[in-house]
Amino acid sequence: MRALFKHRAGPGLELDTARAIPTPGPRDVLIRVIKAGICGTDRHIWEWDQWAANRIPVGIVTGHEFVGVIEKVGSAVTRFQPGLRVSAEGHITAGLDYNSRTGNAHIAQDTRILGIDRDGCFAEYVVIPEENVWPVHQAIPDHIAAVLDPLGNAVHTVMSAGVSAKTVLITGVGIIGLMAVTVAKAAGASRIFVTDVDQRRLSLAKKLGAVEAYRATDPNWIADVKRQCRAGDGPDVLLEMSGHAGAIDDGFKALRPGGTAALLGIPSRPISFDLSNHVIFKGATVLGVNGRRMFETWYQMEALLLSGRLELEEIITHQIPLEDFARGFALMQSGEGIKIVMNLT
Amino acid sequence: MRALFKHRAGPGLELDTARAIPTPGPRDVLIRVIKAGICGTDRHIWEWDQWAANRIPVGIVTGHEFVGVIEKVGSAVTRFQPGLRVSAEGHITAGLDYNSRTGNAHIAQDTRILGIDRDGCFAEYVVIPEENVWPVHQAIPDHIAAVLDPLGNAVHTVMSAGVSAKTVLITGVGIIGLMAVTVAKAAGASRIFVTDVDQRRLSLAKKLGAVEAYRATDPNWIADVKRQCRAGDGPDVLLEMSGHAGAIDDGFKALRPGGTAALLGIPSRPISFDLSNHVIFKGATVLGVNGRRMFETWYQMEALLLSGRLELEEIITHQIPLEDFARGFALMQSGEGIKIVMNLT
Amino acid sequence: MRALFKHRAGPGLELDTARAIPTPGPRDVLIRVIKAGICGTDRHIWEWDQWAANRIPVGIVTGHEFVGVIEKVGSAVTRFQPGLRVSAEGHITAGLDYNSRTGNAHIAQDTRILGIDRDGCFAEYVVIPEENVWPVHQAIPDHIAAVLDPLGNAVHTVMSAGVSAKTVLITGVGIIGLMAVTVAKAAGASRIFVTDVDQRRLSLAKKLGAVEAYRATDPNWIADVKRQCRAGDGPDVLLEMSGHAGAIDDGFKALRPGGTAALLGIPSRPISFDLSNHVIFKGATVLGVNGRRMFETWYQMEALLLSGRLELEEIITHQIPLEDFARGFALMQSGEGIKIVMNLT
Amino acid sequence: MRALFKHRAGPGLELDTARAIPTPGPRDVLIRVIKAGICGTDRHIWEWDQWAANRIPVGIVTGHEFVGVIEKVGSAVTRFQPGLRVSAEGHITAGLDYNSRTGNAHIAQDTRILGIDRDGCFAEYVVIPEENVWPVHQAIPDHIAAVLDPLGNAVHTVMSAGVSAKTVLITGVGIIGLMAVTVAKAAGASRIFVTDVDQRRLSLAKKLGAVEAYRATDPNWIADVKRQCRAGDGPDVLLEMSGHAGAIDDGFKALRPGGTAALLGIPSRPISFDLSNHVIFKGATVLGVNGRRMFETWYQMEALLLSGRLELEEIITHQIPLEDFARGFALMQSGEGIKIVMNLT
Repeated sequence: MRALFKHRAGPGLELDTARAIPTPGPRDVLIRVIKAGICGTDRHIWEWDQWAANRIPVGIVTGHEFVGVIEKVGSAVTRFQPGLRVSAEGHITAGLDYNSRTGNAHIAQDTRILGIDRDGCFAEYVVIPEENVWPVHQAIPDHIAAVLDPLGNAVHTVMSAGVSAKTVLITGVGIIGLMAVTVAKAAGASRIFVTDVDQRRLSLAKKLGAVEAYRATDPNWIADVKRQCRAGDGPDVLLEMSGHAGAIDDGFKALRPGGTAALLGIPSRPISFDLSNHVIFKGATVLGVNGRRMFETWYQMEALLLSGRLELEEIITHQIPLEDFARGFALMQSGEGIKIVMNLT
Repeated sequence: MRALFKHRAGPGLELDTARAIPTPGPRDVLIRVIKAGICGTDRHIWEWDQWAANRIPVGIVTGHEFVGVIEKVGSAVTRFQPGLRVSAEGHITAGLDYNSRTGNAHIAQDTRILGIDRDGCFAEYVVIPEENVWPVHQAIPDHIAAVLDPLGNAVHTVMSAGVSAKTVLITGVGIIGLMAVTVAKAAGASRIFVTDVDQRRLSLAKKLGAVEAYRATDPNWIADVKRQCRAGDGPDVLLEMSGHAGAIDDGFKALRPGGTAALLGIPSRPISFDLSNHVIFKGATVLGVNGRRMFETWYQMEALLLSGRLELEEIITHQIPLEDFARGFALMQSGEGIKIVMNLT
Repeated sequence: MRALFKHRAGPGLELDTARAIPTPGPRDVLIRVIKAGICGTDRHIWEWDQWAANRIPVGIVTGHEFVGVIEKVGSAVTRFQPGLRVSAEGHITAGLDYNSRTGNAHIAQDTRILGIDRDGCFAEYVVIPEENVWPVHQAIPDHIAAVLDPLGNAVHTVMSAGVSAKTVLITGVGIIGLMAVTVAKAAGASRIFVTDVDQRRLSLAKKLGAVEAYRATDPNWIADVKRQCRAGDGPDVLLEMSGHAGAIDDGFKALRPGGTAALLGIPSRPISFDLSNHVIFKGATVLGVNGRRMFETWYQMEALLLSGRLELEEIITHQIPLEDFARGFALMQSGEGIKIVMNLT
Repeated sequence: MRALFKHRAGPGLELDTARAIPTPGPRDVLIRVIKAGICGTDRHIWEWDQWAANRIPVGIVTGHEFVGVIEKVGSAVTRFQPGLRVSAEGHITAGLDYNSRTGNAHIAQDTRILGIDRDGCFAEYVVIPEENVWPVHQAIPDHIAAVLDPLGNAVHTVMSAGVSAKTVLITGVGIIGLMAVTVAKAAGASRIFVTDVDQRRLSLAKKLGAVEAYRATDPNWIADVKRQCRAGDGPDVLLEMSGHAGAIDDGFKALRPGGTAALLGIPSRPISFDLSNHVIFKGATVLGVNGRRMFETWYQMEALLLSGRLELEEIITHQIPLEDFARGFALMQSGEGIKIVMNLT
């Protein structure tokens, strides 16, 4: 089969056109991949930054966002049959610890991640444990189904914070931040404010439902968002999607006393943080978010997609053949592309 | 001043054109009323049913939904000044018991209700304790501000149940049920289903955002709504707005296992209820809802109104002069009117 | 092997001394049973009441509360090895529907129950799917580990309601009601009040931590419990464990406005219920409770047992050999026994 | 009257023996103080550190923890009468903003604090707005009623985190940390672990219910507490009571994935904080805590006191006459005293 893999301890990926099709274990399913999305994490692997060098085994097939069709099931599989169109949750655990057994397998002690710790979906076939399979609703088209993983990050963040009838500030509108705009609106946010440094993304955020889109460098944005939110209190909810120390600091400054901050953006190192003023005196609630709840988040995502209110078409800027992967990464790096989906068929 | 009052222990109300303007106590404000809504409760008082005969003191000025302007404040009032446009929460308590002191004054032991236990707002002036005053945001027009009280019932029900990314069934789309349709949609409900016996209201419910509007007498509606909600599970949330025993029974039959039912409709007597199958085996959560939280619900309502997504214009069918009150009640009784607002100026 | 089974469509059970040891499927474990508790449900099966006659297949091995040791694992089992001391959750599902995939498999659409829908644990060996196995902490002795299933009912009820720093009323102190007394105290209830018709159980409830134990026929108990709870408000939490219509009615009368009722007792038919006064006007929260959450409740149970504060010794009144099963049921019927545990070894 | 006041912009306080008794406004009550506790904040004021120099107006009467009896009520006061034994919430607001009107006045925009922004309770008489008065239950003795304010900090922290059936780590067992030990145990914590640098306080923490009391400098404590909490997961809840950057860092290292941290200790400046590993990857919930909820926390505190399970006697180490105030501060500074209560009568 064709598969995109990490061919060496350095930048880039290589296409292997004669990789062996993986064999499912007794509790696994083999999935024929239709489409797969390129994640920011894949870009780290492509660029071989410090994190990637420390974490990624050379030789691995990358990729963890996809839609496909079950080709074959292991001997002890009982839940699914070949022919079913599916996506999958890429956090794989042995199912033994507290978080695995209480709907939080994404933060289990022994989580192994598809395309990072084991072969992923930038290939014609991928093997997934039965427990991780997610049947895709017939009303959801393939190119959307291919990006349920990052959409799930946005949904998990938005639903953890709770946005219904609340004002929401999103700091950082990259791929997931943009998804968070449309998700927050569909999930009932009263008014949405965003910040970023990229004018194109700010404009798209407004099209998706933000009432104000501020340049993060504008010295007046904090005062302005506070003024617009209940007589100076500030927004009820902060969704931090940048991972940037300055944006985090500003976001907490803007947040109203008693507000909720959900943090998805990942600072690459410890930052200087004003716990006293940002969290303690303010009586704030701060939620660390990663992955997606298994499977509460997936059901919420399906419900939001079926509402007809999610606008994802302009976020998925490009669909390209697998063979054009280098162009896909270049589109991400240049900022010309936002979410890139590769066709495996 | 002009005031509509209960002139005798029987049907009807009478307009007194020379009622004394009430005097505010040291902690009260005197409000000049601009517009006031007619509530279903006012209709009970008008028709003088059993409940009204037991509860309403003859001579009282009725009405509890309104918007007005502060005319004068008592000597110890510190929060508000004359000239402010306001509405008010009609549940008035001494502020001493547990519920009063923890944001639930609407279910306090000693609650007295405007227009029921003390003179109300169907008058040119009404007196309200400072604690109960709600400043109206400038973006909210008078005819909407006049019905914040019933809108608050809908918001309290919807927000108590939590509808974000959930499927919602509303049994009964009278005034508050219709408001609940637009509120649930704005608050992030995935898809909304309604039942009623009145075709006109069913049609309006669809215009406001319901994906299906079933006649309550249709023998197939429960099966159909279950089919549309996650492979037969049924809707996540039931908002019961009819108070009718059959509708309550049907609503619980439709509700999915583990779902949440918020009950606002008031059965006039104990009903036969299948606690085992409707609640216990199902692992359901049932929420009794009345009034509005003070003041969490009011803030949520303001946020939803400012989102620009509430559609209330078709629910407020008529605006009439106070003098036409008899016509107002007739419009409600005939079903031709839904929410009737009276102009006091 | 020896096994207690339903030998005919009528009262009683019979001991088969030469039953075939069951064979585990690829994802099952075979458990050698050490001790098993007799449940109220087993008594229904013994007495062959209407429910049992409708539900129980003749020939089945009964019993669903137990502790044992894994003897053998199926070919695809990965989580557990032979030799591990375990109990198990008796609600078995295919793992496909919403509730199964979100930690609520106990209310899944396709749940099959051990000892009711498939062969149970009143036998030397029992087969359980890997997903349902619960490793027993070494600090928990066998006779306690044998009753984790009903203890889990009590823990699920108490933890769903939330009793920390709250006053709690328990109506009905049978086996699970008595367990709920010690669980509620250990879980942080401020003060616990109970009602029952059996003086011996009322006395035991006081030993376990109830501050007042009322005869349910005492006409003054509601007034007294209200007086003791915050100036007449009434208890914050009602745990209904009787399933008796009168007790349910009284319990809701006592509950304070804004309180929470968790219902575990199962009325055998629809009852007359005052939804308006008991739930709606009161702004009450009502929780239907059955089974145990998988596996949140099991972890909570372990934590409570390890706190050293649960007092279960006086609730487990008898431990008898399997062969004495008839005496075990007689002890339950006479009221002399509360929880009876049978030794399988 | 006698009153302890800040006589100059420098260390110390002075006793004025002829201060004028304050006059209550129309909505205030005048309270004759019986006993008052010395808070860590009062020590900052005594020592005149940077915070105090920036915040405290010279001339002010200090103190905010007390019990007393209402001597006189303002003309518009309706809720309370002279003769009632009371304490009071020291966070005073105009009652106009979102947090004030939703039970969170302690984090309102305009909060003024007793003994910090206006004259406090280290005096024979103190004036308090009616809304802030808390009637003390007759079963609570004066020396306990005098410290409801700091006890409320402990209760707010414990109840915000939720400790029922959970393992709890408390980093820092000063006055409020020690109170948190007994509060957490009474509120249903499964097992409590503490760290501190002071051996005497560690020993007292064990007497109050901690199962392990670690020296914060012990390099093995994190590993040990993780081992004791569910197979290496770590404690469910962190209550941070030290405000020390190292303790905060260690506490988050110990916290289990998906756990909850409630932060009460106040770092004096921004700290280096590993948001990624401590919060985001871990999926942690972090709660900023200050003051007490008005008045949910006060009711919870009363319920816990009435449970008879709070052990406060060894925390209140000294009761001294007002005149001995200098000795009181010295006892705090030396570590010989923990909570010092002054008698005003």
